Amino acid sequence: MQKKGMLVVISGPAGVGKGTLCRALLTQSTDLEYSVSVTTRPSRPGETDGKEYYFRSKEEFLKMIEDGELLEWAEFLGNFYGTPRFHVQAMLNQGKTIILEIDIQGAKQVKSQCSEGVFIFIVPPSFTVLSERLRGRGTESEEVIQNRLARAVEELENVKDYDYIIENNDIDVAVERLKSIIVAENSSTKRVAFFSKEE
Amino acid sequence: MQKKGMLVVISGPAGVGKGTLCRALLTQSTDLEYSVSVTTRPSRPGETDGKEYYFRSKEEFLKMIEDGELLEWAEFLGNFYGTPRFHVQAMLNQGKTIILEIDIQGAKQVKSQCSEGVFIFIVPPSFTVLSERLRGRGTESEEVIQNRLARAVEELENVKDYDYIIENNDIDVAVERLKSIIVAENSSTKRVAFFSKEE
Repeated sequence: MQKKGMLVVISGPAGVGKGTLCRALLTQSTDLEYSVSVTTRPSRPGETDGKEYYFRSKEEFLKMIEDGELLEWAEFLGNFYGTPRFHVQAMLNQGKTIILEIDIQGAKQVKSQCSEGVFIFIVPPSFTVLSERLRGRGTESEEVIQNRLARAVEELENVKDYDYIIENNDIDVAVERLKSIIVAENSSTKRVAFFSKEE
Repeated sequence: MQKKGMLVVISGPAGVGKGTLCRALLTQSTDLEYSVSVTTRPSRPGETDGKEYYFRSKEEFLKMIEDGELLEWAEFLGNFYGTPRFHVQAMLNQGKTIILEIDIQGAKQVKSQCSEGVFIFIVPPSFTVLSERLRGRGTESEEVIQNRLARAVEELENVKDYDYIIENNDIDVAVERLKSIIVAENSSTKRVAFFSKEE
């Protein structure tokens, strides 16, 4: 049986711990690839083009948007960030599983262009826990936290557009679920080339 | 998040090893339930009604068919065998995952009544291996084996009606895949009650 490549989009409200989950997943599963973003922010010492990010000028980035070369993009603090189609496509062509950790708006853009991807929504065990986590960071004002919580309520409405929902209560359990979803999707009749009689 | 019950149908051509896989799965995953069949064959010493089988008379069995109480049924060597809806429904109502190991014709009948089930097709790594396994049993004549292989080719056409396909090359790998599919399906947005804001 031939395996097709697979794009796994991991999203969820801010503060839900999706970054931590993805790092744990990629550390434990060395056969997964991480999507590398394009950015217009200057590279920092030690960063390599094509590893942490693809570094591009603003003009180049705008050209990529125009040419439909980005699966999604957003502006953040004056810099552009986006997911380049060529990188994802190259991984998929090699039959690889590629992980894209992204916010909900970004996931929505990706879904509109890559509906055959696997979309996983991470939720906090409860709003109490989400609010504690946001406060625990100690980096945001109470007003920012209240806004984030209000947005999280709205964002949860997006669950219906996702294939899977994982409650990030215990990180080990959540990572095991992510791994199981990847194994299962690789056995999905949608994703494996039809068993050949001639084999 | 509330978990709904789930019916997992494991099927595939004769000789593919689905019985061995299911026994290994149920030994390793004690939270799974096994579907108990109804039969008209007489109980053997040591068998308990409702454990190995539900033992019913032919009249009772025919009445169950008539009343739509069976998800599937078949006649084999003069005895009737079937999957009782009440048993499966009781397990689903308790939020349990119930395993039904069944031949392809039976799976087709179940699918027509229980389309929300998870349908997994087990395939041999190749026809050479399937034919070796059938011959390895040493219980069938060459003619029977040839007929079985011809039927297996036909049966593989059914894969398209299934959600997952697992190649039974290595039993441990195949059992891990079955487990992953069950974990993944339990995280599917189709199967979990919507995350409640009030939680």
